[in-house]
Amino acid sequence: MSAPRIVEVRKNVLKHNDEIARALRRRFEQSRVFVVSLVSSPGSGKTAFLEKTLTLLKQANHRPAAVVGDLATDNDAARLARSQAPVKQITTGTLCHLEAAMVESAIEEWSMADLDFLFIENVGNLVCPSSYDLGENLRVVLLSVTEGEDKPLKYPTIFNTADLAILTKIDLADAVEFDRAAAHANIQSVRPGIPMMELSAKTGMGMDAWMNWLLSQRK
Amino acid sequence: MSAPRIVEVRKNVLKHNDEIARALRRRFEQSRVFVVSLVSSPGSGKTAFLEKTLTLLKQANHRPAAVVGDLATDNDAARLARSQAPVKQITTGTLCHLEAAMVESAIEEWSMADLDFLFIENVGNLVCPSSYDLGENLRVVLLSVTEGEDKPLKYPTIFNTADLAILTKIDLADAVEFDRAAAHANIQSVRPGIPMMELSAKTGMGMDAWMNWLLSQRK
Repeated sequence: MSAPRIVEVRKNVLKHNDEIARALRRRFEQSRVFVVSLVSSPGSGKTAFLEKTLTLLKQANHRPAAVVGDLATDNDAARLARSQAPVKQITTGTLCHLEAAMVESAIEEWSMADLDFLFIENVGNLVCPSSYDLGENLRVVLLSVTEGEDKPLKYPTIFNTADLAILTKIDLADAVEFDRAAAHANIQSVRPGIPMMELSAKTGMGMDAWMNWLLSQRK
Repeated sequence: MSAPRIVEVRKNVLKHNDEIARALRRRFEQSRVFVVSLVSSPGSGKTAFLEKTLTLLKQANHRPAAVVGDLATDNDAARLARSQAPVKQITTGTLCHLEAAMVESAIEEWSMADLDFLFIENVGNLVCPSSYDLGENLRVVLLSVTEGEDKPLKYPTIFNTADLAILTKIDLADAVEFDRAAAHANIQSVRPGIPMMELSAKTGMGMDAWMNWLLSQRK
């Protein structure tokens, strides 16, 4: 059985990743760039939410940028670029998560002094991204109301490594008979005390509360 | 850099997995058990679809069983057991896919002679499950209309290793402004010629066509 060997190799990769992440975090701090990473299933609305966030930040004269990971295509970078913020696509091939080194090379050509906020949209995956520190200040996990209230219980690690949980596509809550109380209880049971928000990037509902919270986090 | 080492270790794991999968496939064939695996994002409706499928098969006097994988909880097994079919939960811990050896030990106590159909519901993930043969006859990829039409382009491997693509939650198509033509075109572009179905486990729409197709596959 090769399983123990894999664990050992993975530990080395993680250690290497953590070193790069630590260096990134120092760099972000020095330049006062506030860094937020987004994790979720495929299709829970990370890109729509991020496009709206970048647009609102630009309108309020902040200086955001975004790095976005996908296995293939640069569709998301093209969508996000409509916000006028600088955007870089990382294509990971068959890898189901971003690593700190990928972020490091994606932002190579940018001067951190020109930015207030950096968003890192991870590959859509509720498993792999949870173990990789990307040097972010905050990790935000998104869960759309269409995915089912049980997901936090089934993918506990991605929820208990997050700093904020956002319920997305809240405009569809009635159509899918979303059980708000169950979703809240399930998230709180795997990550007690985590702050939570509900919003819809499509209708704009809840975006104000998110923007206020985000701006309050960057001291 | 430890990347090449990881690839090598992974190749060995895959080879070992393929040997077990091959043995499973032989065993299923000998007992005339038709085996279908289900892959998709978290929350695209695999369990609801499978519960409906098991129930309809039981009603028509077929003998189905199911094995279901999740990182944590046995919620899905409990839901599927309502169909009266034999069900086993596999909890994978932090592993983002099922492997053939897990299926092998999950079905250990069952006699294959008592079954016509075996369903294997993989962990909700559009990346990791694609490389693992589980000895199935058919791999079915599910995509819910709420996830966005672009997912086949962004996760090509899981689509081009599948034998059938099912668009789920079709009752929500209007609410999410689902672009049917784009979804079909995107799936066909990564896996030309793959048969496709649209259905809703909630309303039952399309379930008849799926059942007829499934029964026709088991000669």
